[in-house]
Amino acid sequence: MQIVAMQVHSIAVADPPLRSSYGLHAPYGLRTIIELTSEDGVTGISETHGGDAIAQGLEAMRSQIVGCNASRLAAKLIPMIEGEPEGTNLERSQTFHVPGENPFDASQRLYSAVEIACLDLIGKSLGQPVCDLLGGRVRDAIPFSAYLFYKHAGGGGEDSDARADEYGEALTPQGLVAQASQMIAKYGFRDIKFKAGVLDPEIEMESVCQLRAAFGPGVPVRMDPNCAWSVETSVCVGKTLAAELNHGGYLEDPTASMEGMAAVRSQLLGAGIETPLASNVAVTSFADLPEAVKTDAVQIVLSDPHYWGGLRQTQHLGKLCRSFGLGISMHSNTHLGVSLMAMTHAAAATPHLSYACDTHYPWQSEQDEVVLGGRIPFVDGCVHIPEKPGLGVELDRDQLARGRERYAKCGYRKRDDETEMRKHIDPNWRRTLPRW
Amino acid sequence: MQIVAMQVHSIAVADPPLRSSYGLHAPYGLRTIIELTSEDGVTGISETHGGDAIAQGLEAMRSQIVGCNASRLAAKLIPMIEGEPEGTNLERSQTFHVPGENPFDASQRLYSAVEIACLDLIGKSLGQPVCDLLGGRVRDAIPFSAYLFYKHAGGGGEDSDARADEYGEALTPQGLVAQASQMIAKYGFRDIKFKAGVLDPEIEMESVCQLRAAFGPGVPVRMDPNCAWSVETSVCVGKTLAAELNHGGYLEDPTASMEGMAAVRSQLLGAGIETPLASNVAVTSFADLPEAVKTDAVQIVLSDPHYWGGLRQTQHLGKLCRSFGLGISMHSNTHLGVSLMAMTHAAAATPHLSYACDTHYPWQSEQDEVVLGGRIPFVDGCVHIPEKPGLGVELDRDQLARGRERYAKCGYRKRDDETEMRKHIDPNWRRTLPRW
Repeated sequence: MQIVAMQVHSIAVADPPLRSSYGLHAPYGLRTIIELTSEDGVTGISETHGGDAIAQGLEAMRSQIVGCNASRLAAKLIPMIEGEPEGTNLERSQTFHVPGENPFDASQRLYSAVEIACLDLIGKSLGQPVCDLLGGRVRDAIPFSAYLFYKHAGGGGEDSDARADEYGEALTPQGLVAQASQMIAKYGFRDIKFKAGVLDPEIEMESVCQLRAAFGPGVPVRMDPNCAWSVETSVCVGKTLAAELNHGGYLEDPTASMEGMAAVRSQLLGAGIETPLASNVAVTSFADLPEAVKTDAVQIVLSDPHYWGGLRQTQHLGKLCRSFGLGISMHSNTHLGVSLMAMTHAAAATPHLSYACDTHYPWQSEQDEVVLGGRIPFVDGCVHIPEKPGLGVELDRDQLARGRERYAKCGYRKRDDETEMRKHIDPNWRRTLPRW
Repeated sequence: MQIVAMQVHSIAVADPPLRSSYGLHAPYGLRTIIELTSEDGVTGISETHGGDAIAQGLEAMRSQIVGCNASRLAAKLIPMIEGEPEGTNLERSQTFHVPGENPFDASQRLYSAVEIACLDLIGKSLGQPVCDLLGGRVRDAIPFSAYLFYKHAGGGGEDSDARADEYGEALTPQGLVAQASQMIAKYGFRDIKFKAGVLDPEIEMESVCQLRAAFGPGVPVRMDPNCAWSVETSVCVGKTLAAELNHGGYLEDPTASMEGMAAVRSQLLGAGIETPLASNVAVTSFADLPEAVKTDAVQIVLSDPHYWGGLRQTQHLGKLCRSFGLGISMHSNTHLGVSLMAMTHAAAATPHLSYACDTHYPWQSEQDEVVLGGRIPFVDGCVHIPEKPGLGVELDRDQLARGRERYAKCGYRKRDDETEMRKHIDPNWRRTLPRW
């Protein structure tokens, strides 16, 4: 399984004008597809966030990758993720950076992309599904959640390349419920992830209440304002939505910093409210966990094989969280089918990952999918592990070429939601924390 | 890789009259060899501790094992190790039970034996060394330590089956240094593990000083009295041997209980002594780690793939320890070459396992080895990962049959060092803690 070639494809994918506390999604999201080919002609693939920096980072690793046995590469590169990340918790955090643009996790992201491509290559070479290379599947069908966003009208892409606006505008509680209804009807999701931190907290709380009224307590809701709130506002929301966010849901990164999260937790517990706090902002690496445990700042860690060092590190994280009484869920970014399958295999092989995973997949369209055969099917909100080796998907070369062309044309080279916000919505917009 | 057959072989292995705080090793140590055979006729093997109970435990799992795909069995059985162990830390601990006879880790031990045999079967089926199935090797040559014991005269076995007394009696500091010299000359070890808790602490401290005088500070010494000491004695030893046990060595389980260990640590730190405390007694499972971290009771965890849930769990433990600033070393029991190779592959695939591993291997002899080709070679104190699939070893059927015969004849059915002590050394001996 000696790797003889690596190809790195920067692609662009139409993305609707979704809102978050970081700002606005650009008309194109950027992704990177990695191909590693062995001397036997087998190719392993992975997908990660996009832009020039990650592609350059992968190119800089070429001499370490090409010539190495795929089944030994993850260990060879382990110093990339075993070093202690620099900076304080707050500097390392995702507070001030959109995912994929945080310099403090660059090494983990590069490692992840290579590890996943190696696992696909190993699986395809040996005729084994990736999850079975990792000890086997604890579940065959992986549940995902309906990822709701406040959004402006538009389906992503620009000019003649614009996509249909499948979900329409949603900037009110009613609009969000309509979006949820449409998405749940199409995919069968049984959990709701709601990206908050965009409108006044009163409106966002009303949105949660209307979601609960529409779908009932059998559809847990998680709410994620990406640090938009002060401790005081976070506590207020936690108290007001005590019934709506507990019991299978959670409150994700309501406020910035480990200290802020710990203060929210402490005040909520003091008020008898046990709604767990989840995080992929305050906690972004293994190095953050001791403080998170010590201060009880976070009760649920959001894993993500793209950011935490790949699939084996996701398994390590699962065991660590279980050992320390933490829950574990899974974070998502704008992605296509290769990432979806990596997330699916990670979830299949991580016993303690017992929440439905986040996924942006409903926000992408058939037109942009690079997986042969088109979009990955969901059944009752779940993706099933296919009876195929590796991740279970192959690349559609024509679609990949179109993604590359789109990248060349679109002009975006990194994710910058703040600039997009100023360009399309409000020329004076700045991300201020806390906003409320 | 469907498993179509399981065989469980209870064997007995001659063992010298080694001493510890638990008592005396019997003339025969008990081991169990597990074979899992796939529909393709490939056989995976593992070795674990012995006696009737483990064999019965494995037999009770037969219907879950036979018929399952080897690459999915570890996940299928995961509830065996993901449940929280019952009891308090102290009850769960190894304080009152010799390894292999602790009812609170029975489930992990059974799981481990099956997981390792599966990994060997998968590796042999796919043509991959076990460490490369686990992400690859971070090291090719695994260092082990010289495991010194106070011992009586005798080489193990009984009557016409008695072994030569290779190392002779060692019940004085001088005897221990001679044992170390002989073992290091033969195997090339560069670290010393010294099983203490047997003679008066003054004699044991003198033994450490004489070891240091003989081998110098370049040969780190770890000292393990298996809870024989009070907190006061432990602190006294820690202070007296501040120079000898720090810098690559450690003090292992000087006293019983997490509280006791935390008290020793606190008092040593208060005296400016940073010698780390290691444990495979106070900490025996993932469930013990939160308290160990919180109270700083343990700075180095002794992993052991036989007790912690196999090789993947050893990797999880490594990552967890790294994340929480704990060191990690490896525990050993009386064992043959199959176990030695499982330990070697575990160490190869666990980046953070940076201490030389313990091994009892020098105390066993060629006559009892069940590995085809005879005993595993050591080069400069290290075992090398062989360029062979799976664990890299096969069974010698004749030797296995002799081990089974020996088991049938020897009469031992569980490990009971206290009874042996009364039988051979002192009819009134009881294990009392703390003894000093």
